Amino acid sequence: MHQLLILSRLAREYSDIIEAARLPELAISSSVDPADAAATGPSFDLALGDPALLRRAMPRLTTVHWVQSTWAGVEPLLDPSLRRDYILTNARGVFGPQMAEYVFAYLLARERKIFEKQASQDAGRWDPAPPTRLRGKQIGLLGVGTIGAALAGTAKHFGMRVKGYTRASEDSADVDQYFHGSLAEAGAAFASELDYLVSVMPATAATRHVVGEALLRALPPRAVFVNPGRGGTVDEAALADALQQGRLAGAVLDVFETEPLPADHVFWRLPNVHITSHTAAMSAPADIAPIFIDNYHRLLRGEPLRYRVDFERGY
Amino acid sequence: MHQLLILSRLAREYSDIIEAARLPELAISSSVDPADAAATGPSFDLALGDPALLRRAMPRLTTVHWVQSTWAGVEPLLDPSLRRDYILTNARGVFGPQMAEYVFAYLLARERKIFEKQASQDAGRWDPAPPTRLRGKQIGLLGVGTIGAALAGTAKHFGMRVKGYTRASEDSADVDQYFHGSLAEAGAAFASELDYLVSVMPATAATRHVVGEALLRALPPRAVFVNPGRGGTVDEAALADALQQGRLAGAVLDVFETEPLPADHVFWRLPNVHITSHTAAMSAPADIAPIFIDNYHRLLRGEPLRYRVDFERGY
Repeated sequence: MHQLLILSRLAREYSDIIEAARLPELAISSSVDPADAAATGPSFDLALGDPALLRRAMPRLTTVHWVQSTWAGVEPLLDPSLRRDYILTNARGVFGPQMAEYVFAYLLARERKIFEKQASQDAGRWDPAPPTRLRGKQIGLLGVGTIGAALAGTAKHFGMRVKGYTRASEDSADVDQYFHGSLAEAGAAFASELDYLVSVMPATAATRHVVGEALLRALPPRAVFVNPGRGGTVDEAALADALQQGRLAGAVLDVFETEPLPADHVFWRLPNVHITSHTAAMSAPADIAPIFIDNYHRLLRGEPLRYRVDFERGY
Repeated sequence: MHQLLILSRLAREYSDIIEAARLPELAISSSVDPADAAATGPSFDLALGDPALLRRAMPRLTTVHWVQSTWAGVEPLLDPSLRRDYILTNARGVFGPQMAEYVFAYLLARERKIFEKQASQDAGRWDPAPPTRLRGKQIGLLGVGTIGAALAGTAKHFGMRVKGYTRASEDSADVDQYFHGSLAEAGAAFASELDYLVSVMPATAATRHVVGEALLRALPPRAVFVNPGRGGTVDEAALADALQQGRLAGAVLDVFETEPLPADHVFWRLPNVHITSHTAAMSAPADIAPIFIDNYHRLLRGEPLRYRVDFERGY
């Protein structure tokens, strides 16, 4: 018999979906609180949950040998003080379409001047100012995993030119031109001529602050930076400088080094910054639970689990 | 020798592109003003222009035998007082991608709550309210010509279910379900369960006020109506009633029965109405001039011209 701990803000929904799947040989406990007695039993061998909650429970979960993260990003579980002698799998392949809705909502809002049109309307003013178009513009993707590939597909649908920066992979045919190597070397060629720069990189030691002064200076002043990825990939002071000095036209920011974004942060006060409060892609139990269920069947069959995280690489 | 009159707000740009094409046997005059002496010469046999301007010049253009409209909609030239003994061609096939950018800018803005997020940001408030998604929602297209087909393609890209209402054609494979016949009969089945209703019908006697009380009552209260088509297709009083009584969640309106929209019109004061001042799809000379150039070559070869308008049908 396997003993599963579900530890999530949405524990009830995960529990309902997994109970309904009637998985063999599985007993389930669930909680929203890592300090809860139900979450501290010594006998769990499996866990499914939000990394921020699991981080607090891990010191007591000494017998767990597989953790399924409900999130794509698993940074809380990479803390060097925590054990790594278990299989960690994350959520992949489900965020691409949501991320595409997020990113293209803001790209289209910019091209169609929807905030400007609304301001005219609020003033009772007929406003025939023509829009601009996505078609023919250039987008640069920092990271082309499943999320980046979904963004590339939508960019192509709208007739954009797509540049992609990855460590090595070139899996998406929707990317017109790939860039590899260090951004210190490849960044200028990658960033030149971009209308939009979108970061969907994981937060790792290698990606920390890669969106910094050098890359931002390589962008044309018309460019807009969009970050639905991870806050740690951005040097926020350098980004604020670029925006304040007019070296960058705008930014759409979902994630930050500190969340919630502190009340005195300069981003709140900058024009042309849109703050979306870490809502770009939400983990929906209906999307994530099937990943656990599929992996559980693999576990029973003795097959390798899908979406295993490499603790050293960080994703 | 053919004598072409260009009569457009963008006459200079049209003239430059067509001159650069060095068309054989063609002399060109251009003007932005239908009362201009240059626009009143008796010898023109061809005209290219904006229908609103051409309408005023037509009584004097007695020798013209082909008019290429720069717009998709040619209502001004359908005035019964005007001659119809010439070939009228309109602009088609170039507005679809622009219309898709317009419509999906507003659909995504709604799903992603971008105005609500902006209001939170203006108040300095971190706002973790989750977005909703286009994926899985239903869109109904009133009219599935080249523009409707482009909208259907983008809707499918975002994972929506697509219903299409047409007179008879079923040309787009991106439409999941077609509806025909009078809207009085087919309207309820077409409109039920829609999240978005988009009208891209031409303005004709048959389409006048088809978006009226009956069709609006058949929509679920969660639905949003988007009109980038023609103002005359909508019963504006019925639409205002539906919005004021909460029978419709919102409207995105580009076109109106009277434009500019009069300052005292109720639409200016309704919450959940977005007014975009007839900018959804702009005729760009770079897109439209090639249609004239292609048709001119056909004229010289004695071939039928493309995109000929049926004066009786109105498109």
